[in-house]
Amino acid sequence: MQQINVGICGLGTVGYGSFCLLKNNAQEISRRLGKSLRVSHIATRKLREHQDIGDVKLSTDPMQLAADPDVDILLELIGGTDFARELVMKAISNGKHIVTANKALIAEYGNEIFRAASENKVMVAYEAAVAGGIPIIKILREGLAANQIAWLAGIINGTGNYILSEMQAASRPFAEVLKEAQQLGYAEADPTFDVEGIDAAHKLAILSAIAFGTALHLDKVYTEGISEITPEDIAFANELGYRIKHLGISAKTAHGIELRVHPALVAKQRLIARVDGVMNAVLLHGDAVGSSMYYGAGAGDAPTASAVVADVIDIVRRMGMLEEQVPALAFQTEDADIRILPIEEIISAYYLRISVRDKVGVIAKITEILGENGISIDAMIQKDPDMTGGNHEQIPVIIMTHEIQEAVMNKAIEQIEALDAVTDKLTRIRVADLQD
Amino acid sequence: MQQINVGICGLGTVGYGSFCLLKNNAQEISRRLGKSLRVSHIATRKLREHQDIGDVKLSTDPMQLAADPDVDILLELIGGTDFARELVMKAISNGKHIVTANKALIAEYGNEIFRAASENKVMVAYEAAVAGGIPIIKILREGLAANQIAWLAGIINGTGNYILSEMQAASRPFAEVLKEAQQLGYAEADPTFDVEGIDAAHKLAILSAIAFGTALHLDKVYTEGISEITPEDIAFANELGYRIKHLGISAKTAHGIELRVHPALVAKQRLIARVDGVMNAVLLHGDAVGSSMYYGAGAGDAPTASAVVADVIDIVRRMGMLEEQVPALAFQTEDADIRILPIEEIISAYYLRISVRDKVGVIAKITEILGENGISIDAMIQKDPDMTGGNHEQIPVIIMTHEIQEAVMNKAIEQIEALDAVTDKLTRIRVADLQD
Repeated sequence: MQQINVGICGLGTVGYGSFCLLKNNAQEISRRLGKSLRVSHIATRKLREHQDIGDVKLSTDPMQLAADPDVDILLELIGGTDFARELVMKAISNGKHIVTANKALIAEYGNEIFRAASENKVMVAYEAAVAGGIPIIKILREGLAANQIAWLAGIINGTGNYILSEMQAASRPFAEVLKEAQQLGYAEADPTFDVEGIDAAHKLAILSAIAFGTALHLDKVYTEGISEITPEDIAFANELGYRIKHLGISAKTAHGIELRVHPALVAKQRLIARVDGVMNAVLLHGDAVGSSMYYGAGAGDAPTASAVVADVIDIVRRMGMLEEQVPALAFQTEDADIRILPIEEIISAYYLRISVRDKVGVIAKITEILGENGISIDAMIQKDPDMTGGNHEQIPVIIMTHEIQEAVMNKAIEQIEALDAVTDKLTRIRVADLQD
Repeated sequence: MQQINVGICGLGTVGYGSFCLLKNNAQEISRRLGKSLRVSHIATRKLREHQDIGDVKLSTDPMQLAADPDVDILLELIGGTDFARELVMKAISNGKHIVTANKALIAEYGNEIFRAASENKVMVAYEAAVAGGIPIIKILREGLAANQIAWLAGIINGTGNYILSEMQAASRPFAEVLKEAQQLGYAEADPTFDVEGIDAAHKLAILSAIAFGTALHLDKVYTEGISEITPEDIAFANELGYRIKHLGISAKTAHGIELRVHPALVAKQRLIARVDGVMNAVLLHGDAVGSSMYYGAGAGDAPTASAVVADVIDIVRRMGMLEEQVPALAFQTEDADIRILPIEEIISAYYLRISVRDKVGVIAKITEILGENGISIDAMIQKDPDMTGGNHEQIPVIIMTHEIQEAVMNKAIEQIEALDAVTDKLTRIRVADLQD
């Protein structure tokens, strides 16, 4: 049986998970491939105590693997961007195929990396970079290749989804749940990357490029995190029939492509509103397939290894057939003219929470401002503080609007915040109307 | 730009849908492929009034296309098995690649067809045969190729799911909802194929083969339909925290493979319990990926065409590279020794509805029978007919059991039905415990 040599760079959670999966399922994988996969070489700074790599050749320098003529496929599982980029470019120039789980690397340097891969006739696979074990890259690039995608919306950061789910389940504040998530190992000591949406922005940039056939536009992703979401907003949203989810949304409009990560109200009866805890899901709409959703674990050693090893299998299946390969970003030619819309140009419905001092007078003024800006009201909650034990100086008024351009909404918000009776910065959460 | 010629046999809903999709998205598809797809030849008995095929060569004899040297890829969209099989075998022997949406053809004759395809070095693609637009064949065969699949469970017949959803939503009886589904065009005049689970059995046979690497075993699928489900059962299930869904389930156990289509109780909080109307979903568990679910339209011209055309694109991407192709049934070698379990050997929890005459005495007897057979009770509902306005001669007793082998349950059921106070045939519905 022909043997393919795999070199693993980085033996952290994902690296060791991939090593173990290649070992444990070797027989099944050979039965699929008609070839055998062998981990020939591992590069890591130091083996951890529980790590047993048998007689695999070990080195501390990943660059050795990038140069080793024995390595057919190099797994970049180190993370970070500077060294990883150097390593990957070196391996490509030496004719090695690459599998990576590194979303930051692909989102930031994908354009350059895919160009180099194409010139050197090697493949760069990155299924594990988005939504962990869900084969969403393959689904978009191959399974739905007959479609023009209209939009996609994903819960693509498990940490953020875990925090919002817990806030929802027990009316607990963000800071408290975050602390618990850190203790459970679901959130990093510095949680910024996850809770401020940066991780989701990396993934969304990749999904959008392959859905719409553009280059990667990480710098144009509008990004808003979940740290400002309060249990109060979750409760009001619930009352109105919604859950608050942290979504990455990309949509093709007549004017360009929307590319945005932010919290959003999603109607409760939608399947994606029911995706809780650390799980991920991507809901999308294609012109032929209609709505379709893909759900699974977005992180963890085994689910990520599932995607890494599937990529290895894919590469082996396509080796020696490079002119026919599936393009890294789904299309042979990029749509270079397409415009990514600034957030001010998106159209959305909105949830507004406004703190007011004197309810009766100010509501007339607020609705007048909305009316003058052509914004119509879909629903409103105003509770009598005498009945609910609330504070007369800070009465929350909740308004759900119909769809309007964000720039218009921004203007109206500015006018509302300027009112004397409005005591605080207004809270605005976009509504995602996601047909499933 | 290189041109690939596609011949379409059968211009019904799916055939014309595929023609339109190839035409409407031609530009996007070329941008993906770097080649252009052209429908060169169509075979149909008669064009319908709304069908406009431009200047495509038309014939009434599909066998002409199977012999036409101009046709590179033949789309078998005629349906049925006898003629379709002859057509496909002929086209294969003439070196044509095949795309089919015909689940009966693949489930019944797949083993023979794939062997012929392999000998003739052509590809036979059948993504559209299972779950319509959801690329579940690709997901199982490629996206999750690193996994050993433990089990899969699918809502894979839209008609049946529509009927159960409507029965659930409005407490309406089966016959009434079926009639409505027929009027809406969701069910055939003869609905047997859908409501008795035959269609689902075809699809499950295919899913199971590619998940576990066996040959196709259609004849071994245990099949039970939904025509016996009553609004009463749906209401009791609801009270116990469950929905009733018609599932295709295949699981790998230590003793062999379970392969079964039947109604099942699914806990309400499971995502798959929320899949309603004509939509399909497949939930599965892989050793690496964990639980993952795939949701979308299971039928209809456009969703099915989405899968047909994706298969065409896939074939074009792999043409000229036949030794490396993805095996039709996922594995290069079949697991020929594996055993498909008869239904008596499965392990399941059960919902039992027993009609009794004299509540007090008979319940002791029923629980005694269960106890003697080693079946433990998880939950019970017994309502006082004086309080609920029920009939003293037919009091329903609902029992949910813990897991037990079906053979044991059959024996206990026989004993319960033999009791004097039991007035009617017992209703037994299996419980599907589906971790998501």
